[in-house]
Amino acid sequence: MHVYDLETPSVLIDLDRLENNITRMQAHCDSLGIKLRPHIKTHKIPAIAQMQIDAGAVGIACQKLSEAAIFAEAGFNDIVIPYNIVGPQKTARLADLALFNRIAVSADHPAVLQGLAEAVKVNELTLQVLVELGTEIERTGASIDRAVDLAQRIEREEHLNFAGVLLYPSTPVMRPPLQELLARLDTDGIGVSHISGGGTGAAQQAANFPELTELRVGTYVFNDWRTVSAGWATLDDCAMFVTATVVSHPHDKRMILDSGSKTLTAEAIAGEHGYILEYPEARIYQLNEEHAYVDLSDCDARPEIGDRVHIVPVHTCVVTNMHNTIYGVRGDQVEVEWPVAARGRVW
Amino acid sequence: MHVYDLETPSVLIDLDRLENNITRMQAHCDSLGIKLRPHIKTHKIPAIAQMQIDAGAVGIACQKLSEAAIFAEAGFNDIVIPYNIVGPQKTARLADLALFNRIAVSADHPAVLQGLAEAVKVNELTLQVLVELGTEIERTGASIDRAVDLAQRIEREEHLNFAGVLLYPSTPVMRPPLQELLARLDTDGIGVSHISGGGTGAAQQAANFPELTELRVGTYVFNDWRTVSAGWATLDDCAMFVTATVVSHPHDKRMILDSGSKTLTAEAIAGEHGYILEYPEARIYQLNEEHAYVDLSDCDARPEIGDRVHIVPVHTCVVTNMHNTIYGVRGDQVEVEWPVAARGRVW
Repeated sequence: MHVYDLETPSVLIDLDRLENNITRMQAHCDSLGIKLRPHIKTHKIPAIAQMQIDAGAVGIACQKLSEAAIFAEAGFNDIVIPYNIVGPQKTARLADLALFNRIAVSADHPAVLQGLAEAVKVNELTLQVLVELGTEIERTGASIDRAVDLAQRIEREEHLNFAGVLLYPSTPVMRPPLQELLARLDTDGIGVSHISGGGTGAAQQAANFPELTELRVGTYVFNDWRTVSAGWATLDDCAMFVTATVVSHPHDKRMILDSGSKTLTAEAIAGEHGYILEYPEARIYQLNEEHAYVDLSDCDARPEIGDRVHIVPVHTCVVTNMHNTIYGVRGDQVEVEWPVAARGRVW
Repeated sequence: MHVYDLETPSVLIDLDRLENNITRMQAHCDSLGIKLRPHIKTHKIPAIAQMQIDAGAVGIACQKLSEAAIFAEAGFNDIVIPYNIVGPQKTARLADLALFNRIAVSADHPAVLQGLAEAVKVNELTLQVLVELGTEIERTGASIDRAVDLAQRIEREEHLNFAGVLLYPSTPVMRPPLQELLARLDTDGIGVSHISGGGTGAAQQAANFPELTELRVGTYVFNDWRTVSAGWATLDDCAMFVTATVVSHPHDKRMILDSGSKTLTAEAIAGEHGYILEYPEARIYQLNEEHAYVDLSDCDARPEIGDRVHIVPVHTCVVTNMHNTIYGVRGDQVEVEWPVAARGRVW
């Protein structure tokens, strides 16, 4: 099928660039002697995870238990879930998933450990648990004191196994606190053989963080306007494009595209919602669900209603989640149609 | 099923409030002698559209052709699509849909009219076309001069029928330009029997815009933190709640919920991503896909990991679009499970 036969808005993946991105990140991790564990939240598509495994990845990371379940069914049986799995329904599902798959989860609080231990005890399992160390983004994660306490608790729990330390993002600023944690654990006689870091930006700085044994990275597979803006990739590394049609052109300085927040999501960088290849000087300054408002003041070229444009989205992971199907293209041919298998999962 | 048996995050609809919202808006339109045409983008669920029709609505509005197709299949055959349908694939689908359903679309440019005329000619149809007048939001819509030109062109086109004027939002500030347009059309001998306005906020001011014959409104059916913030509804009118679990509580002043941007979307009001019923003073100040960051500095109450909260989302329409299923509840019982039938439609 010719790419023009797809209606708009559609999400296209440039297969050459996808393959290059996968190869390059694997080579980067190989050169540093770090295991690569791609985060599937970016694509949610088993076929792309398989490309990553085929290139040398050791397993996958999933942010949700329900996404892990989809991938386990598809044959990906080595899964890290870097998330506190909380509540009796979810921990029971986790315990079931861990019966037949190699699953590790993270925890940042004793209450989380307690829930995990109770659930896996029922299945007579030993669950791998990584202690999450808090980082500069101040999201989840334990303080050093609490992390020590958590490791001790895990060591005492019959049905939990201390599988190492996890952090996100693993920027080198976290090296001193991690070293302090490792020293404290060493004093307690708790060995740490595994340090799982993460983040496409942090991956670039992994050479400066030699303690890391594994990297969980997602966005590198497609890249986006955010990774380009941060200097982690170039426009030529961007594999995802949203095609859109000019549906209105009220006057010379404004056009409206059919790619609204239902397509691009509401995320923005400095108030802009993507980068239009055909109009580099244009600004997508506002979105409604089905409308992208584009300021053409700085553009010489003038569009016609019906013209098609290609947008590098701000953040690929959230765009994937909006679409039931995305399309792999090579040149102007659609080579593969991928259902987004793990889209829209709740639990 | 008890509502607590649903995992989090889930989207709940309070059925009593939903019914009240439907009844109240219908009574409002009835009292003004204006037809109510609910916009289904807010719920995307045929069963809720049926409740609106049963209450007295004349038909529905859909923002996309593909959503209209879902609702037409479900038996809703009087549909306005207030959007420029552009491109040969979409106009051909529109012409097919119009064969068996009463469809009207809007247009704001001669190029749009040309595409519509070519497509419906094939099916030997006459398509109802509303001329869209531009408004203060500067999105789509024609100037008065262009609107006159469009109405004249439609009158000349064998396969198009001029069905009136459409605008969004139909706030009273648009009354003078609309009156000017009507006077110009009258001079040209073009009668306008139908003026379709829209917007939940504009509906509140419809008494001050007597030219309107129809209102397209969506959000009123659920309401949200945006309609409450704008003074168009009270918290007691909000029918949609997102349930979330406290999954992390790194320190007294911060908690993390499992309702991230994949659940609530990235939309915000003044940097906040929703209103938590259990913690009115809390601020959801940041989202990642699976994490909501909550500032508890101003709260006395302190959560436990595993606690469940209810969030009034910023914008219900975009939340619906993220979920495959939403749940109708009465008290603490789940009364109905609704697949979001028109979610994720592209063309």
